[in-house]
Amino acid sequence: MRAQVLEAVGAELVEGGYDALTVDAVAARAGVHRTTVYRRWRDVGGLLADVLDAGADDDWTPPDTGALDDDLRALNRELYAALTARPSVTAALIAASFRSAEAAEALRRFWEDRYGRCEVLVERAAGRGELPRDTDARRVLIAATAPLYHHLVLLRSDPDPALPEQAARDAARAFGVAR
Amino acid sequence: MRAQVLEAVGAELVEGGYDALTVDAVAARAGVHRTTVYRRWRDVGGLLADVLDAGADDDWTPPDTGALDDDLRALNRELYAALTARPSVTAALIAASFRSAEAAEALRRFWEDRYGRCEVLVERAAGRGELPRDTDARRVLIAATAPLYHHLVLLRSDPDPALPEQAARDAARAFGVAR
Repeated sequence: MRAQVLEAVGAELVEGGYDALTVDAVAARAGVHRTTVYRRWRDVGGLLADVLDAGADDDWTPPDTGALDDDLRALNRELYAALTARPSVTAALIAASFRSAEAAEALRRFWEDRYGRCEVLVERAAGRGELPRDTDARRVLIAATAPLYHHLVLLRSDPDPALPEQAARDAARAFGVAR
Repeated sequence: MRAQVLEAVGAELVEGGYDALTVDAVAARAGVHRTTVYRRWRDVGGLLADVLDAGADDDWTPPDTGALDDDLRALNRELYAALTARPSVTAALIAASFRSAEAAEALRRFWEDRYGRCEVLVERAAGRGELPRDTDARRVLIAATAPLYHHLVLLRSDPDPALPEQAARDAARAFGVAR
């Protein structure tokens, strides 16, 4: 039942944005009694938080190509696809995080989980001698991904397919890894 | 009169966020007749757009320290101060851009203006031989500033005073400028 309800949240969100998202519409779309949805998720904030928490439950693992710059490229390509999908659940959830404190907190937890899983990219690179052992993994990962969020979420630039590649290469070079 | 009204918008926005922002409250705070405000700015979206357009009218110029990495550091320190001010008009305007299409468009114009003015940093660095002549100025600027927006606006990380410095240095290194 959770799967249908959370899928309905995503569908409602990409269709009408945060403003159109109501517990009743989600219940109707999911074919679940509204009282059940209210009891378990309470409100729209609770639904959004659970969409993100469900995302963190999955078995996603970061790319493992054998080279840091290629790993960052592959990671950025995934992120680019998620942010430029039309409609994009990720973009809708980010927008919702400016409306609901609960969604903002869930998004923070989600990113913490994802960036945490990605730290292994930097650790493996250090193990291969591509980077010093004491490299700040989070700093490398943010350097690679931040330009994508900046262009696609904040600046609302037209999507440029060269962007994931460029940002990954710039981040790798910033840490002395250039091929 | 424009100055008082726009100042009142900023004050209302940082006090209560987008949800508390109304034309009537702005008119009352500015001591201007509400009909006048409605006639000139129409609605909240119009007010927000004008706050941003007024920001683009100013005579702000980017830092000029004589070295690219120091210029980027100085730029990032300004941005960090704006994003971590409590309350922050910049952060409130970004949040509002997810609510009002007019505010989003005005924010896009504002950033276009600001990044446009900053391109001279990269041109001067190229003139000094720090960078190749064909360096993509926007790409250097986004590499430097995006991590600040990512941490402070999206990830909502606790402000880290080392961040402006680190992001500027990483961006400079990405483009082969390291001191």
